Amino acid sequence: VTGEFEMIDALRARLPRSPDPNQVWIGDDAAVLPQHGGGCMLFATDTVVAGVHADLDLTGWDDLGWKAMVSTISDVAAMGGEPRHAVIAVAGPPGMDLTKLYDGIVEAATAYGCPVVGGDLVNAAEVVVTATVTGTCPAAPVQRSGAKAGDVIWVTGPLGASAAGLRLLRSEAVGGPAPTGLSREDLRTLKLAHARPTARVRAGVAARQAGATAMIDLSDGLAADLGHIADMSSVGVRLETVPVAYGATLAEALGGGEDYELAFCAPEDAPIEKAFVELPRPFRIGVCTGDLAERSLGGEPFPVSGWEHRW
Amino acid sequence: VTGEFEMIDALRARLPRSPDPNQVWIGDDAAVLPQHGGGCMLFATDTVVAGVHADLDLTGWDDLGWKAMVSTISDVAAMGGEPRHAVIAVAGPPGMDLTKLYDGIVEAATAYGCPVVGGDLVNAAEVVVTATVTGTCPAAPVQRSGAKAGDVIWVTGPLGASAAGLRLLRSEAVGGPAPTGLSREDLRTLKLAHARPTARVRAGVAARQAGATAMIDLSDGLAADLGHIADMSSVGVRLETVPVAYGATLAEALGGGEDYELAFCAPEDAPIEKAFVELPRPFRIGVCTGDLAERSLGGEPFPVSGWEHRW
Repeated sequence: VTGEFEMIDALRARLPRSPDPNQVWIGDDAAVLPQHGGGCMLFATDTVVAGVHADLDLTGWDDLGWKAMVSTISDVAAMGGEPRHAVIAVAGPPGMDLTKLYDGIVEAATAYGCPVVGGDLVNAAEVVVTATVTGTCPAAPVQRSGAKAGDVIWVTGPLGASAAGLRLLRSEAVGGPAPTGLSREDLRTLKLAHARPTARVRAGVAARQAGATAMIDLSDGLAADLGHIADMSSVGVRLETVPVAYGATLAEALGGGEDYELAFCAPEDAPIEKAFVELPRPFRIGVCTGDLAERSLGGEPFPVSGWEHRW
Repeated sequence: VTGEFEMIDALRARLPRSPDPNQVWIGDDAAVLPQHGGGCMLFATDTVVAGVHADLDLTGWDDLGWKAMVSTISDVAAMGGEPRHAVIAVAGPPGMDLTKLYDGIVEAATAYGCPVVGGDLVNAAEVVVTATVTGTCPAAPVQRSGAKAGDVIWVTGPLGASAAGLRLLRSEAVGGPAPTGLSREDLRTLKLAHARPTARVRAGVAARQAGATAMIDLSDGLAADLGHIADMSSVGVRLETVPVAYGATLAEALGGGEDYELAFCAPEDAPIEKAFVELPRPFRIGVCTGDLAERSLGGEPFPVSGWEHRW
């Protein structure tokens, strides 16, 4: 059995490389392609599988459609771009609630100004939804590979809410006890973070405009995703703090994934406050170091594992 | 249970319409979008499911990868455009032969000048491969809806080879008798037509340049796919002949699907010969009529059913 990232590297080696250093083919959140008339086109695809990425006993068909769209839009956000158009391919069995699935897809398309312009519907035993999105970026997109030692590491919001929400939904489903110390509203917020995650398009644009040197969306978990930036930028990661969503645990914040907040790096003097003036203020969580092996939080090594598919 | 095309109509009604009559959102082979700097961008997605679109006991993992790419590239060809870039999403179980799958994907990407620039790999019990392709078209793409009564109907090659190839592969697999009257080379050609279909990009461009009024790729079968043109163009279809691939039957040519030849309509005086001067000459198979209900071959009604997924 091979891990997802090892397999991606092996397949990548079989694919031709971009002839143009300004293009990105494979290995980042979205591909970066030239656009007629200037700027860049972004191109990303993401698949959600019922039972793997979303449990239809816990969340709705509409939530599955929403998540398929948002996970791909988040890849465009992670480059500092804006989504433009989507196509949706749905594989599934007769009787699945396609109408409700499309309700969630259309809600996300509307919320993010990314209309669904095409698709495919095919039969399969399992439900597999692939959303593919084009985006645009007026200036150079932010890749994973540009962080430098000394850069500050930021995240665009508190983490772990999606994993905590899933934990609560699972507990509720088996009649588990309500967690203490959380209001009805707190519980609703956490469950919604799992069922209806938010792509941070505005925050990605702000980070790019502020001069971010590297960026990634937190789909696999902070520890794993910062590891991708560290590996591709050849820097170490020294975290001072991790903002944990209210009701989540530190482990959920570090390893939970699917929060779809953005992590980015930027020089110490980058005008973060100015760029985020109308947006939720990002959290400063640490610095990039020159020790390539460093993955530390408060001076202690943190576990780098996150979600990884097996091949 | 609902048919695929009825379901597509129902979902289409839930999606916002394009604000611009020059754009095509949903309902054609590929979406037509504006491109910065002029011309159009095309955007298409297609999914192949192992066991539905390809039987891995009969054809290889590389053939599945090839077919995923070619079926989507064919959607771009059917607009008269040329493919540019692809992203590939693969869902499947650990142990599947991803490397060989990618061999076929890369062969098709190379053959059609459509590099794979991104993708996603996720675990699922079933193998589901979604190829999404962008294309460009320097002039107005050929939609399904422009045919007029009196237009001549053409196909770019003989039909039924893919269905016949599948029949032969199935027969071989159970030790069935070799069909009489076919050479080894004939058999190989038919099986290859099933395992490695060809997208007709050059032919699509030639048809557009010759003034084609409507075009579609033959993925569901000639009868069903001409029905789509007829429905969207409000014309009838009067076929005089159907070119049957050597070794295939008329039923396979009419209903088999997956030949990925193109069917197109063009005015009687369109310069077809000139446009196809360096390409295999297309076959003139009939005319569009003003009798919207007409679906005839040699004066007899033909059955319009083809492959349709059930919902």
